[in-house]
Formats: sequence, structure tokens, C-alpha cells
Amino acid sequence: MPSTTGRTAPIDVPRGLKGVVVTETSLGDVRGVEGFYHYREFSAVELAESRTFEDVWHLMFHGALPDAAERAAFTARTAALRHLPAQVRAALPAVARATAPSGPLAGLRTALSLAGACAGFSPLYDIDAERRRADALAACALVPTLLTALHRLGQGLEPVEPRDDLPHAANYLWMLTGREPEPERVRAVERYLISTVDHGFNASTFTARVIASTGADLAACLVGAIGALSGPLHGGAPSRALDTLDAIGTPDRIDGWLRERILAGDRIMGFGHPVYRTEDPRSRMLKGIARTLGGDLVDFAVQVEERAEALLAELKPGRDLHVNVEFYAGVVMELCGLPRQMFTPTFAAARVVGWSANVLEQAEDGKIIRPAARYVGPPPARPVPAA
Amino acid sequence: MPSTTGRTAPIDVPRGLKGVVVTETSLGDVRGVEGFYHYREFSAVELAESRTFEDVWHLMFHGALPDAAERAAFTARTAALRHLPAQVRAALPAVARATAPSGPLAGLRTALSLAGACAGFSPLYDIDAERRRADALAACALVPTLLTALHRLGQGLEPVEPRDDLPHAANYLWMLTGREPEPERVRAVERYLISTVDHGFNASTFTARVIASTGADLAACLVGAIGALSGPLHGGAPSRALDTLDAIGTPDRIDGWLRERILAGDRIMGFGHPVYRTEDPRSRMLKGIARTLGGDLVDFAVQVEERAEALLAELKPGRDLHVNVEFYAGVVMELCGLPRQMFTPTFAAARVVGWSANVLEQAEDGKIIRPAARYVGPPPARPVPAA
Repeated sequence: MPSTTGRTAPIDVPRGLKGVVVTETSLGDVRGVEGFYHYREFSAVELAESRTFEDVWHLMFHGALPDAAERAAFTARTAALRHLPAQVRAALPAVARATAPSGPLAGLRTALSLAGACAGFSPLYDIDAERRRADALAACALVPTLLTALHRLGQGLEPVEPRDDLPHAANYLWMLTGREPEPERVRAVERYLISTVDHGFNASTFTARVIASTGADLAACLVGAIGALSGPLHGGAPSRALDTLDAIGTPDRIDGWLRERILAGDRIMGFGHPVYRTEDPRSRMLKGIARTLGGDLVDFAVQVEERAEALLAELKPGRDLHVNVEFYAGVVMELCGLPRQMFTPTFAAARVVGWSANVLEQAEDGKIIRPAARYVGPPPARPVPAA
Repeated sequence: MPSTTGRTAPIDVPRGLKGVVVTETSLGDVRGVEGFYHYREFSAVELAESRTFEDVWHLMFHGALPDAAERAAFTARTAALRHLPAQVRAALPAVARATAPSGPLAGLRTALSLAGACAGFSPLYDIDAERRRADALAACALVPTLLTALHRLGQGLEPVEPRDDLPHAANYLWMLTGREPEPERVRAVERYLISTVDHGFNASTFTARVIASTGADLAACLVGAIGALSGPLHGGAPSRALDTLDAIGTPDRIDGWLRERILAGDRIMGFGHPVYRTEDPRSRMLKGIARTLGGDLVDFAVQVEERAEALLAELKPGRDLHVNVEFYAGVVMELCGLPRQMFTPTFAAARVVGWSANVLEQAEDGKIIRPAARYVGPPPARPVPAA
């Protein structure tokens, strides 16, 4: 029987396209065995430790870290793009109310769809690389404004206007709280954001590239990616790991709680990752940040990590289960005063730069991503019975 | 170098995943060589000729055509789901204004994202098949209401309330115009809608299934699919073929216009399809509908088709180029009084049933669709230079 394409023999591959190379990329990769991931030619963790969010954003969009003049220009340009168009601002209270039942990612999905349509983003193949990058800068600059405005509207508060004098991470905390953020917290959040910009190929990045491959506009791509990120199998829900800490409650309950869950075969949120066989390099960095911030929560988290590693090694030998990025990401965001419902949206606020960079790269390819399906139902020869 | 997955060797496949089997499906297929496509075990064209939209919707969602009692229950149930929740209705004027620069698909993308969030659709893997189907019924029933309301608001008109006493297709024309639709036009639009519900595997259907594979909610999947549909490479823009007829203008200009374009190597909108080597079976049916409706436009379209086929055979021998679905779909929608900016949205109003059926099927699979990428940039060993 001819395949859907009608011209080529069907090609069978592992379920879920596991290991199937869908594209080449110069944006970065994860080396799971080595416990290392990178953005272009640099270690992502090293970038997070020494650079600004804007530097890394520039690296992803332009292929190189900025020099001093480029940094100043890029920082000023992106700061100027943070402001909501009047029509988007006018619609946000209604969007916040209507999307409240489904949470902040559904709110962001809707608000970014709206903002992209309002900006009149063009189909990717109708514009050149410079125009595409301009659309992407606008979208990435708007996401923190949209997220914090929706959050505040949901709390019955007025949105806080973005400040052009603050860098990206500081402005994010400013818009969330309306208070001058402490430098130590700004830097902690900035390092988290940088470490979250990209992470090899994943379902939301792939979604963005599939939509981009049709030539749709940038908002269409990003809205699809947000949808994929909201799926429980995608991961990326740092609040779940913190919920684990809450459920354990006190240090004396750690061993009993963990042992029961592990023996029952339950997944312990915050442990295990499909790619890393070693400790997740993001966790190591975030643990360092958490220790610098300090406090009871950090001490407790470290105790839970140590006991969980020991018990997992004892009860599930050979499984190589370590804390994943969610574990200390949740601790760091909690210590920085982010409300838990903003943990995953904060992840999205960083990842949108990675998605956008992937869309810009995909747009250079120009070929639609369109696999096939195999029909396995009954033979399609049955006459339609009379109604 | 280890691949992104860290555990399996990378698998190389054709660019764009062409011919790569990503899933098994019982929903339908296209047999391009035979010029035939089907929904489950029935010819799609035969269904369009003899059944109601609701019958085919039931077939796609439940796996079988309804009996009389099932038809009555399904028709009543879906009619009751057409009404906008108050919070969505309240937000629509602002959505219509803000999305106007990007057109009706961006409006639908935003409004359906909003409506799905307002309905509180649950992650697919958190609910059973019955709840998933209920969400999908609600989404598909709302799409025509959202589309027509956005269109009317964009024209400065009040939305028209859905009528529960009208079947799906008649109610769509009612909401668009606020006038009692003529039965002949209703039936023409209904047959177009049925023929558009599904069409094998395509980029928007694939997008919906990728997002569904993460366990995200139905709105996330459909919003991504709408985004992919909006891409120029996806096709599905019946107004373009009509623009061709307008550009030609009069019968005496047909040969000159076509010959010039064909010799210049331009694509003639409305001709050629990547799958069919024969006449597109949808075109044949839609041409029959157009002839029944009759009039100068139909006569002109038939003349253009005949001359284009003759000239393409003369100037591009062996290419098997025939009219595609866009050509007579545009003619039929024009004759039925649909405004051109509603042609592609009307396509989406039908296809949402196919996307949803694909999401429901994907949700039964449970495995994330997550291919790999190959890093081809410079070696990631460069120390980060000081800022």
C-alpha cells in the first residue's frame, strides 16, 4: 500500500522518534555522559557564572558574545522593547480573568499569541533574517512583562511598568514585586535564567521548529512551544521538587518518607533526568547559588539530597539517580522570593530565548518538517451506509 | 561524540522527516497514487456526499457512524456547546482589536487559547478518554462561534448568537451573516467542511500530536496546530486560487496570463499538490458542487482549469499538475457568500475536528515525541572570555 507521501517507502524508526536526527544545529548540545551542556562554543554554566542574561541572549541570536559597544546597544534595544502596546495592555485584564482556571502558562500562551498578532509578526519565509530577529527580540523582551502583568492582575494588583534603566533579570523582579530588587537575588535569578535558555533538543524546542518549518510567524512557533512546555512529560516544573520538601516537612522525617516512596516505586520529584547519567550540571551550579543565599531551607534541601542519593543507591542500585535541575532551581527561586506559581513561567521567560534562536535557525533551512503515519485501521473500502 | 539522548546512536533520516513513520493511526489516510482519501473505513468524498458534518465528527471521535438515536444525541450535545462563556465573550472585542494586524488565524489562535484556558482543560494524561473527548467536543463546537464573532467584531458588527436548532454547517453561516441561510448553500458548505476534516498526516496534525505527546491540554495542542496551519508551506489558503482568477480577469486573457506565468516558472496558485499524482478527489467533488451552484464565476473557473491543464501539459510535460483542493474550494466558498478572509478560517473550523481526533488518538499512546539534533557548531571547549 502506498504511504501517505505516495512517493517514498515508509521509514520505520524508534517510537517517539527517539534518537532520530531531525536537524543540524549550531546553537548547542547536551553531553549527557559527561554531565556538560553548552551554548554554541561555550559551557552554559560558565556563561551563567560570568555573563549577563543579555550577553547570552546576544550569543544565541547573533552567534557571538557582544563586545562592550554591542552589549550597550543590545541592552538598550531590548529594554526599549519591554513595553506593552496599548491594545495588549487593554486586553490583559480580561485575559488574566478568563485564563485563571488553567494557570500562568495558559495565560502566557494566550497573551503572547495576542501580543504577536498585535505586533503583526510576518510569516518567517516572507521576511529576511534581520526582520525575523527583530520580531524575536520583541517577543523575548515582552514575555517577562506579560508574565508579571498577568500574575499581578491575578492577585488583584496593578501591573508594574518595566524600567529601561534595569537589566533584564533585575527588571523581571522589579515588575513582579514593584520593589527595588536586592543585587544578590537579581544575580541568583539571572544565573538561573541563563542556565535555562536552552538545553539541547527537547519537545518544546522541537515543536517551535516544526511550526517554524511551515513558515508561520514567530508568535505561532512560540505559542506552540509554550503549549508543549505545559505538558507534564516535558518536565520543567521546579515547584514540584519544592512540594517534595514540603511533604517531607522536617529533617527527622526524611528517611522514612523517602524509603516508603522509593520502595513503593514512586517517582521522587526532583530526582532523575532522561539525559544525564551524572549529576545535572545545572543542579550543581544552582546548589552553589542556594548555599550562597543560605538559610534553613537550603540546609534541609541538602540533607534531603544526601539521604535520597544514599537511599536510591541502596534501594535502586545501578540506576544513577541524582538531583535534577528542578530540585535546586525550586530552592533558589523560593529564596529569591518568587511565588511558586511563577517558577515554571520563569523557566519559560528564559527558554523563550532558546526557542526563538531555534526558530531563527530553522527559518534558514526552509524545508517543512512533515513525517508520515501508517494507517492500521480496517480497509477503507466500505460503502457508506444510508443515514 | 554522544548524541543528545546520551544513550542511543543518532539515526539519520531524510530531511524534514519525509517518509519517516511517526505514528500508527486508525483515523484515515491518503492514497496519492489512487487519488483517494478516507476517514476510518469510508471514502471521505462519499461521506461528504451523503452524511452530515455531525455524523462525520462522530465517526472521527467515536470510531463509528452514529445510528439515529446517537445522531440526535450528538447533534444536541454539540449544539449546546456552541455558546461562549461570559468571560470569553467579554474578552473577544479586545482580542479582535489587538489581533487585527495579523488576520483571522492569529485571532482564532488567541481566542481558542483563551477559551480553552477558561474552560480549564486538563492535561491529557491526567484525565480519562471520556473527559478528553468532552474537552475536544467543547473546543470543536466553540471554534465556529469564535471565528464568526471575531470576524463580525472586526467588521464593526455585533456577534450573532449561535442557534441550537440549526445543524453545525447551517449555524456557521447563520452566525457569520445573521441571516437564515439558503439550504443549497448550507449543503455546499457542509460538504466542503466534511471533505476538509482530515487529510492524512500533515504539518498541523503532526504539531498537534507532538504537543499532545507531552501530555499538555487540548487547547495547547490545537493552538499549536493553528499556528502550523498559518504557515505558507502548509498550504490550505483557498483564497489564493481565487486571487488567480481575479488576476486573469476575463476569458480572453486566460491563455496569455497562464503562458507567461508557466514560462517564467512561477507557481500557479490552485494547481499542484505534493501528494496527489491524479486529480485531487476533493477538487472533483467541489467542482461538482460549484457546477450545481452555477454562474459566471464557475464557467470562468472551468475554462481556466481546462486551459491551465492543457498549457501545463504542453509546457511542463510529465509533471502531472492538476487543480488542487484550493481551486474549487475557493469558488464554492465565494458562491456561498463567505468573505475571502474567512476561507482559511473555515478550513480551520473543519480541520479542528481532525486535529482533535488525532490528539485523542495520540493521548492513548502516552509516549513523548522527542527526536534529536546533531550539533555542528565549533567545539564547545572555548573558555568564556572576560566581559
